[in-house]
Amino acid sequence: MKTIGIIANLGKKNALEVTGRLFHWLQERGLAVLLDRETAETLGQKDLGRQRESLGTEVDFVIVLGGDGTLLGAARAVAPTGRPLLGVNLGHLGFLTEVELRELYERLPDFLAGRYTLDERMLLDIQSPARSLPPLSALNEAVITKGAFARLIHLHTYVNDTYVDTYPADGLIVATPTGSTAYSLAAGGPIVDPRVEVMIITPICPHSLYARAMVINADDVVRVRIEANHHDLSLTIDGQEGYGLVPGDEIIIRRERNIRARLMRSLDWRFHDLLRRKLKENS
Amino acid sequence: MKTIGIIANLGKKNALEVTGRLFHWLQERGLAVLLDRETAETLGQKDLGRQRESLGTEVDFVIVLGGDGTLLGAARAVAPTGRPLLGVNLGHLGFLTEVELRELYERLPDFLAGRYTLDERMLLDIQSPARSLPPLSALNEAVITKGAFARLIHLHTYVNDTYVDTYPADGLIVATPTGSTAYSLAAGGPIVDPRVEVMIITPICPHSLYARAMVINADDVVRVRIEANHHDLSLTIDGQEGYGLVPGDEIIIRRERNIRARLMRSLDWRFHDLLRRKLKENS
Amino acid sequence: MKTIGIIANLGKKNALEVTGRLFHWLQERGLAVLLDRETAETLGQKDLGRQRESLGTEVDFVIVLGGDGTLLGAARAVAPTGRPLLGVNLGHLGFLTEVELRELYERLPDFLAGRYTLDERMLLDIQSPARSLPPLSALNEAVITKGAFARLIHLHTYVNDTYVDTYPADGLIVATPTGSTAYSLAAGGPIVDPRVEVMIITPICPHSLYARAMVINADDVVRVRIEANHHDLSLTIDGQEGYGLVPGDEIIIRRERNIRARLMRSLDWRFHDLLRRKLKENS
Amino acid sequence: MKTIGIIANLGKKNALEVTGRLFHWLQERGLAVLLDRETAETLGQKDLGRQRESLGTEVDFVIVLGGDGTLLGAARAVAPTGRPLLGVNLGHLGFLTEVELRELYERLPDFLAGRYTLDERMLLDIQSPARSLPPLSALNEAVITKGAFARLIHLHTYVNDTYVDTYPADGLIVATPTGSTAYSLAAGGPIVDPRVEVMIITPICPHSLYARAMVINADDVVRVRIEANHHDLSLTIDGQEGYGLVPGDEIIIRRERNIRARLMRSLDWRFHDLLRRKLKENS
Repeated sequence: MKTIGIIANLGKKNALEVTGRLFHWLQERGLAVLLDRETAETLGQKDLGRQRESLGTEVDFVIVLGGDGTLLGAARAVAPTGRPLLGVNLGHLGFLTEVELRELYERLPDFLAGRYTLDERMLLDIQSPARSLPPLSALNEAVITKGAFARLIHLHTYVNDTYVDTYPADGLIVATPTGSTAYSLAAGGPIVDPRVEVMIITPICPHSLYARAMVINADDVVRVRIEANHHDLSLTIDGQEGYGLVPGDEIIIRRERNIRARLMRSLDWRFHDLLRRKLKENS
Repeated sequence: MKTIGIIANLGKKNALEVTGRLFHWLQERGLAVLLDRETAETLGQKDLGRQRESLGTEVDFVIVLGGDGTLLGAARAVAPTGRPLLGVNLGHLGFLTEVELRELYERLPDFLAGRYTLDERMLLDIQSPARSLPPLSALNEAVITKGAFARLIHLHTYVNDTYVDTYPADGLIVATPTGSTAYSLAAGGPIVDPRVEVMIITPICPHSLYARAMVINADDVVRVRIEANHHDLSLTIDGQEGYGLVPGDEIIIRRERNIRARLMRSLDWRFHDLLRRKLKENS
Repeated sequence: MKTIGIIANLGKKNALEVTGRLFHWLQERGLAVLLDRETAETLGQKDLGRQRESLGTEVDFVIVLGGDGTLLGAARAVAPTGRPLLGVNLGHLGFLTEVELRELYERLPDFLAGRYTLDERMLLDIQSPARSLPPLSALNEAVITKGAFARLIHLHTYVNDTYVDTYPADGLIVATPTGSTAYSLAAGGPIVDPRVEVMIITPICPHSLYARAMVINADDVVRVRIEANHHDLSLTIDGQEGYGLVPGDEIIIRRERNIRARLMRSLDWRFHDLLRRKLKENS
Repeated sequence: MKTIGIIANLGKKNALEVTGRLFHWLQERGLAVLLDRETAETLGQKDLGRQRESLGTEVDFVIVLGGDGTLLGAARAVAPTGRPLLGVNLGHLGFLTEVELRELYERLPDFLAGRYTLDERMLLDIQSPARSLPPLSALNEAVITKGAFARLIHLHTYVNDTYVDTYPADGLIVATPTGSTAYSLAAGGPIVDPRVEVMIITPICPHSLYARAMVINADDVVRVRIEANHHDLSLTIDGQEGYGLVPGDEIIIRRERNIRARLMRSLDWRFHDLLRRKLKENS
């Protein structure tokens, strides 16, 4: 018997109703269901609630109800367990979600029956040796930015200990291919097919005109050193988790070695099909 | 007898020594000299100190010792008095400063003898009717940005009460031609000859791909409305003065009607000569 | 009694039928109608045919049936006569056309009754003193480009005889505000409100990274000198008329002094309304 | 005994003198030397002349005297033989050349003694099944462009038979990482580390605002279909070889499977060092 996990963003419109219906639909078909803790409590199923981080260890796969943002957070939590995620879109067409709400019950049987493919995405591992930041993981990008009142910052950037440049800029993005269609694109970076294994370094509003987005090897190690007189800087993960940085900090970014986010996709899913629809809609 | 004002950025290397020497050089030639208050006190000439804002009313022109940043601040303070400013560069080649330190005493006689031209620059007048912000004036630009941890913001922008767009972006720049070579350029805006009377609206990292820098009439009125659920936004003037904004705020930006910054230039000064040298050096 | 001119692009789908119907609709209301020569012949009204260039002198205004391209050509021909043009769109939403075909007969009475506003657009005057090019006029832009097999070209550019730069590029665009939403936009230039009187110099694929679109005064004179060893260059007007250039040529571009294209617009027409609709659709 | 090949661009200033000196320097050290045919004849060494394509089969490595352009052509010719190339720069600092002329005789001994590393670069294989184009190979890029007088073209682009987009543009670049710092950069593409195995699709002046440079897998196959009504199109290889295209043509671009250009580099060569110096100089 299969066990299905559900992670829901209850802040989305109709999310509670949609989640409750899915919960019952799965149970009626004889499937076991576990929920993220908050959703479990809201549905009055407290004993079926689990931490997001441990949910993956007990289920076959995780259905995520929300938007791309919800899926980003769920993927970071679930990826270490190796379990795949099925993103169900409660909002606008997303780059990461796979199923529109209106087609959920029509398409679920395929995913339950194993008729899907895995769209594996690399993650970034972000460390800051000098400070005791928690171990951080990003699916889209790690961003180092100045605060609103801070002046232009200078970020000394190295790739594999070779000095690359000191970007005078508002900040610097280190993105995965998955993140290439998010913040990095807004800052002028290229679109990168998620099957390509690279990292993208994109400066934000560089004041040096020759600074451009740069595509490097996924095996490279990026090191960004904060100047000793820079205050009011921050590190943001996937646009969701923020941490203050201190002068002299070093941020080291590399590919997560053994962890990948596994997105469930229909057998005929193509990145370029999605890209075409998504960019036209979102532009 | 002429009276010359001096505004100095004492934070620059050698600034105190340079300022002291200039002070004596002018006095030895029978010129009266007034100083900004801080410089006056540091030079032991407290009774010659004046507020920057009132200095202009007592002098024929103001010599500003520092970089472009120093001149921006001095120009905002002096412009309402109509007095011209002569920027003396203590750092790298600037867009606004006119005289390099090494040529100061060779070129000063021309400026004292009236052999110069006035390079007049428009300023922006920034108001926020709902809040009691002080009256604000900008020579480069007014910038509305989100804080480091804030999500994408939506800025509803109007020109002369015609709705233009809601930029989903990190922020929005409204720049003068003078500011076109500063932050707006870093955000993708065009270079605008300072003799052209326009404003430039440049979105910062727009997530909508069709958003582009837009050049509008200097007589237009730009109105930016902050969504009611946006927190952690700020308004920055010339990259120097910052103010917090609150949800629902409206920022209204128009050309300063009767005030211009007047920069003293050599008779053969050409914007395009400067641009060519400056961009090549700074790139 | 009013006389109305019609210029039609018979290459557009249904154009002949649409034009014939409009011709009769106007005649039935007691209006005199003149036609461009080709349309007149096709409709069997040869004696009502006129050269595009002289049509304006005999009519109150000219209705142009086609797309933005048709209107560009018609406007260059009619502008010297001072007569206004009403663009009727037979294709996609345009930047220049005013009336959609489906609303033509509903909106024509307002234009015939004088209930409209004039949207005046500056034109460029393009000369090449060394060669005997015909006198040229552009509503969108003049473009100097290399041929497909030519190498990178170097265009020595001057503004009012001040040397600006030698762009190593595929070419150079000098655009009006009207042209800012056409080729110049594709090459990275800003959007310029058509009420602003400026010219935009936009390099095409510049190999020097610091080259950026530049906005200059409408009263400036742009001079582009072709290097003596450059072959296979061409000058294109509004993307429609092409001329070969020869090594050593000089192209001089300035605003047409006394001629403007006058587009008829509804009384509540706003550029920013159109821009918003158009960019979203076209992106 | 080693045999060294020389390919020289005799069009460069001093190239003949430099080549003659190198020829004798090598011979004096007991090395056999072969030359490209034109250089051999000019030096009066006709029997040492070889076709560029076969030169590689008889030598240990090939010294190329010229600029990046000379090296591009030499690399395409020599790459199939597997022999490495040493680029000696007779002009400005290049991305591909390794040795400056002034340091040639100081650094040559290291290369002759095998103290170097190989910087391997992928090539593109370009085919046009419908027409009998010759087999084409590119080190920088393949470019499909419209002629100067042609209108906007529509290029239907597929990756692995998945439809990607129809770019309305002046043309389309498919570049290698080596080519990412050439034409693709001028058209807005990202910089790609040459150790990354990808292809970059960069539209030239796209009229659809959402079109962006796209990074795809090196194993992907790009197919570009020319619309049946497009005339005056051309295919250009590395900016050096041009071919006319005909309506309905299809261009298929993939990585050269078994051929790589092998550039000889000093043991401490780093792409990022070069990039920093080069972009600052060239901007």
